[in-house]
Amino acid sequence: MGNPEIAKLGYVALVTPDLEKSLHFFKEVIGLEETTIIDGVHYLRAWGDFQHHTLSIEKGDSGHVKFVGWRTKNREDVEGFKKLLEQDGIPVASFEAGTTPGIGEAIRFKLPSGHTFELYYDVERPKAEEGRKSVLKNQTYKSWSKGVSPRRIDHVNIHTSTDAGITYEFLEQLGFNMREYLRDDNGDIIAGWMSVTQLVHDLAVAQKPTLPTPARIHHISYWSDDSQDILRAADILREHDIDFIGPGKHGISQALYLYVMDPGSGFRVELFTGGYLIFEPDWEPVEWTMEERAFGNTYWGDTVQDKELNNITIEAK
Amino acid sequence: MGNPEIAKLGYVALVTPDLEKSLHFFKEVIGLEETTIIDGVHYLRAWGDFQHHTLSIEKGDSGHVKFVGWRTKNREDVEGFKKLLEQDGIPVASFEAGTTPGIGEAIRFKLPSGHTFELYYDVERPKAEEGRKSVLKNQTYKSWSKGVSPRRIDHVNIHTSTDAGITYEFLEQLGFNMREYLRDDNGDIIAGWMSVTQLVHDLAVAQKPTLPTPARIHHISYWSDDSQDILRAADILREHDIDFIGPGKHGISQALYLYVMDPGSGFRVELFTGGYLIFEPDWEPVEWTMEERAFGNTYWGDTVQDKELNNITIEAK
Amino acid sequence: MGNPEIAKLGYVALVTPDLEKSLHFFKEVIGLEETTIIDGVHYLRAWGDFQHHTLSIEKGDSGHVKFVGWRTKNREDVEGFKKLLEQDGIPVASFEAGTTPGIGEAIRFKLPSGHTFELYYDVERPKAEEGRKSVLKNQTYKSWSKGVSPRRIDHVNIHTSTDAGITYEFLEQLGFNMREYLRDDNGDIIAGWMSVTQLVHDLAVAQKPTLPTPARIHHISYWSDDSQDILRAADILREHDIDFIGPGKHGISQALYLYVMDPGSGFRVELFTGGYLIFEPDWEPVEWTMEERAFGNTYWGDTVQDKELNNITIEAK
Amino acid sequence: MGNPEIAKLGYVALVTPDLEKSLHFFKEVIGLEETTIIDGVHYLRAWGDFQHHTLSIEKGDSGHVKFVGWRTKNREDVEGFKKLLEQDGIPVASFEAGTTPGIGEAIRFKLPSGHTFELYYDVERPKAEEGRKSVLKNQTYKSWSKGVSPRRIDHVNIHTSTDAGITYEFLEQLGFNMREYLRDDNGDIIAGWMSVTQLVHDLAVAQKPTLPTPARIHHISYWSDDSQDILRAADILREHDIDFIGPGKHGISQALYLYVMDPGSGFRVELFTGGYLIFEPDWEPVEWTMEERAFGNTYWGDTVQDKELNNITIEAK
Repeated sequence: MGNPEIAKLGYVALVTPDLEKSLHFFKEVIGLEETTIIDGVHYLRAWGDFQHHTLSIEKGDSGHVKFVGWRTKNREDVEGFKKLLEQDGIPVASFEAGTTPGIGEAIRFKLPSGHTFELYYDVERPKAEEGRKSVLKNQTYKSWSKGVSPRRIDHVNIHTSTDAGITYEFLEQLGFNMREYLRDDNGDIIAGWMSVTQLVHDLAVAQKPTLPTPARIHHISYWSDDSQDILRAADILREHDIDFIGPGKHGISQALYLYVMDPGSGFRVELFTGGYLIFEPDWEPVEWTMEERAFGNTYWGDTVQDKELNNITIEAK
Repeated sequence: MGNPEIAKLGYVALVTPDLEKSLHFFKEVIGLEETTIIDGVHYLRAWGDFQHHTLSIEKGDSGHVKFVGWRTKNREDVEGFKKLLEQDGIPVASFEAGTTPGIGEAIRFKLPSGHTFELYYDVERPKAEEGRKSVLKNQTYKSWSKGVSPRRIDHVNIHTSTDAGITYEFLEQLGFNMREYLRDDNGDIIAGWMSVTQLVHDLAVAQKPTLPTPARIHHISYWSDDSQDILRAADILREHDIDFIGPGKHGISQALYLYVMDPGSGFRVELFTGGYLIFEPDWEPVEWTMEERAFGNTYWGDTVQDKELNNITIEAK
Repeated sequence: MGNPEIAKLGYVALVTPDLEKSLHFFKEVIGLEETTIIDGVHYLRAWGDFQHHTLSIEKGDSGHVKFVGWRTKNREDVEGFKKLLEQDGIPVASFEAGTTPGIGEAIRFKLPSGHTFELYYDVERPKAEEGRKSVLKNQTYKSWSKGVSPRRIDHVNIHTSTDAGITYEFLEQLGFNMREYLRDDNGDIIAGWMSVTQLVHDLAVAQKPTLPTPARIHHISYWSDDSQDILRAADILREHDIDFIGPGKHGISQALYLYVMDPGSGFRVELFTGGYLIFEPDWEPVEWTMEERAFGNTYWGDTVQDKELNNITIEAK
Repeated sequence: MGNPEIAKLGYVALVTPDLEKSLHFFKEVIGLEETTIIDGVHYLRAWGDFQHHTLSIEKGDSGHVKFVGWRTKNREDVEGFKKLLEQDGIPVASFEAGTTPGIGEAIRFKLPSGHTFELYYDVERPKAEEGRKSVLKNQTYKSWSKGVSPRRIDHVNIHTSTDAGITYEFLEQLGFNMREYLRDDNGDIIAGWMSVTQLVHDLAVAQKPTLPTPARIHHISYWSDDSQDILRAADILREHDIDFIGPGKHGISQALYLYVMDPGSGFRVELFTGGYLIFEPDWEPVEWTMEERAFGNTYWGDTVQDKELNNITIEAK
């Protein structure tokens, strides 16, 4: 048997001090669909997401992310990863199927950066009910029902005050491929865009020494099909009196973006489109120097650098 | 060692009776860039393609496609596939590196449908020269230099007068995954959308019993980032007095399309955007029945079904 | 004092046998806002319309349009037009302010084609209430609240079984300028695109000898800002299981279109963007011959010609 | 006879110290078409402009604008304006037809702000030659031939160090309607968006007390049909290594913008789409206060306020 493999980003488990505000933001402004509510936890997904949920939201004392869930390629990969991690002395917690509704047997462990990742294989794919179900057989919900209406989850971006190099190495052992990175003047990589899929990144990790707690989450991203959808999102956010950064286009990843914060939890969402796919098996990671950093961050448009909204992150447990 | 694997669609080797017309069409109207010309063969790629070429064009007696090239995941996969194919009694021809400029050691063989496929691993990635090179480090050429200006090659669509079921099975052995298919009233699959990547299809195969020669190529597709690019393409084609079908949106694959024929060779190009990606490792192929066929072909817009332009295909060798 | 002048298209008074269906279509699918309901009549406008309503809908025995209202440039123009029309022997009915809610003193009369036009000057411009009001001072409602969400009314298109030439002449006396027209092989103009504004047309009139009643309305059109909005509209209509024609681009007017029918009344709506503006004071009307007709109707895309959906019109009183 | 009237913005006469750079910028990057070159002056227009030229470019010692030309509604209006202006003691210079190629008899005079305006009626409309001519009968050139490829001229924006109130009053006497304006805390209007057409503005005038010379030109604007065209323009400018501000959306006028400077002359171009049209004959100008100024300038996106690129203007003679 080969190495266990991760197939894709699964979901983010968000805790918010203001559940009502967060639900209004994610359901009415962003326009995610609610699969179900169980024990006060709301399970949401975009109209084009194919699994049970890509975001769970529950009430808690502070805005933070409990963990980020990833789906493995095979059922036995969950056990396979458990063994590998424990061989390396990493504590691994196991969870029975259904601990998270819609998610099968799972393990959780911490990255060197302190972020908790979950791995699972089995997942429920509940059909949408009549009235919300798409007329297309290959699509979960009707598109364009409400708000921004992105198609699917895209990636997560995490920050760490620890030495990010250790986390990049760890992630590469889990099967993440470095696709683009920023190298500082000391020769250290301080931001990396990594993926297990053919996206440029499913996961970005940035080193930020001055964070108030070691492990933070910068944003989750949902993907829309067209650039015009991002401009329409800007109108929608303004009409809801919600501030944001963008639109702008990243040099790194080439994607068009808008950054907006959930007013309930402080968790940031990147509305995202464009970019490129990587099909080459021998992809050479693209290096950006500190001199090229501004260009890599903002190819054009409203910049993400050094803006207050951009510098706030929420804690990751 | 595991099974050999195919990473991605590489290129299509096109022969045209009217080289000048075909070059004008692909370079000025579609807007592909020319990597090089060697021995009268023109090697073209889109501005976002990462390899030596994705289309070669040479002069010949009739418009046809010599073969479709695919890149393997590893260097040893080329030899691996050779062994597997020969074990199954399939004749395999081997080619030295450089037989096709920019392409390493390669093998060629015929599908049961009669279409020739090439497999190779090594590929040159010549940088674009100053003036044509993008200011972005992760992009080959400047975008939007001329014509439609699509980003990258997307897929090929082939037709066969043979029993397509045999070819689907053969392709699945090569590692192609069935993503969506059309089942006729006898229970046979007569059109299949298959991929080795996370695209819905790198390759579509349709059974057309009445073709004039057994193996035909319906189209090659180039991908643009935005729906608006496809509408702009329609304007550009009209201004060049070139007829086309579309715009329309497929139900199958959910992509926005335009079909246009190279006036030199009769080879059809699909200009394409939208659609969805498949990250689920246990994707259940989406079945469309004959009753659902029209909807699957044309979710909305100018239909691809039963139009003359659509029914013409060129021979595949 | 100079000639009385018409400033702009005002509103269409629609009667529907199925009020519930029509309201669902115009409010939820098209996404018009409801200004008010008075005596069972619903007054609707788009988020960017600046007057009381641009469409009124009431219940009646059959789907038809009672009249089309136009706003004059000056208050005294209403009386001015009354005099001119009566001098020509045209019966004119006068209505007190408020006969139609939001509309001041008005006159109504019939075109030679049999269509009833209303002229008025005074109009109420009720502000949108909090929650629906735009954050922009120059916009009535929040955009993108629901459905297709077009910006504003654009034009009406009427059909007549009478000699259209008489109606073109009559309309020119009212101040409509011919902008583009279709001339048949006998030398008669059988379709004319006319405007009092700088749009290519506020009003199109086509001669259709075989209509079941002499005066018909082909469609009302609402305008969106971007081509992508029309493609999104196509998705929305499909998700509501509503059939339509398009997208396509007219040669005449250069506009991108989608034609869809209100399932309640049978009244057609054209969703519309693009096109050009005419600022030249000495514009030469653009002539299209029968040979050029198909191209003029459909520059590209799903054609409006000879389709069943397109040939149905509702009666105009 | 009524008052003389202005129909539309005609053209801007630009002088550049680096003709080659300016021509490359306007012809290859922006993508204007060249009607003709006479006596070293290049006459340019966009593919959808209907007159001889909308921009003339000639070589001179410094980057500046000689005058802004406006077309009147009637031939006799040129003489009519001459009389009115001279009655008010304004010096008026008369020019024979053909003084500017393609332009008939003209007069020139200075606004109180010091900017020179030209008024003319007659204009040549040379057809585009085969190869550049559109296949559409209602369009001058093929669209999308090169560069950004906007449709038509839209407006000019001028700055003055004098009391702008005097100029607003003067312009209102010429027939310009105030559509939106910015009022400062002293109650003075310090920026006004005015039009003779149904656009929100053909002309914006801002009071800037600290200008190096009294009469400056901030920008000329060309209009594109779709928001996506502006995003594509941003890519094109970056690939040409040309800096710009935007994309952003104005609150005032609601238009999507990009500001870019001609590297030859320092003259700024606004690439522009969206916005609204004013058909109401009794439009109440929209007032913006200093508190609302930032929102009015930048509804969202990369801001035009206080940026260096934005503060540079070229002299108007």
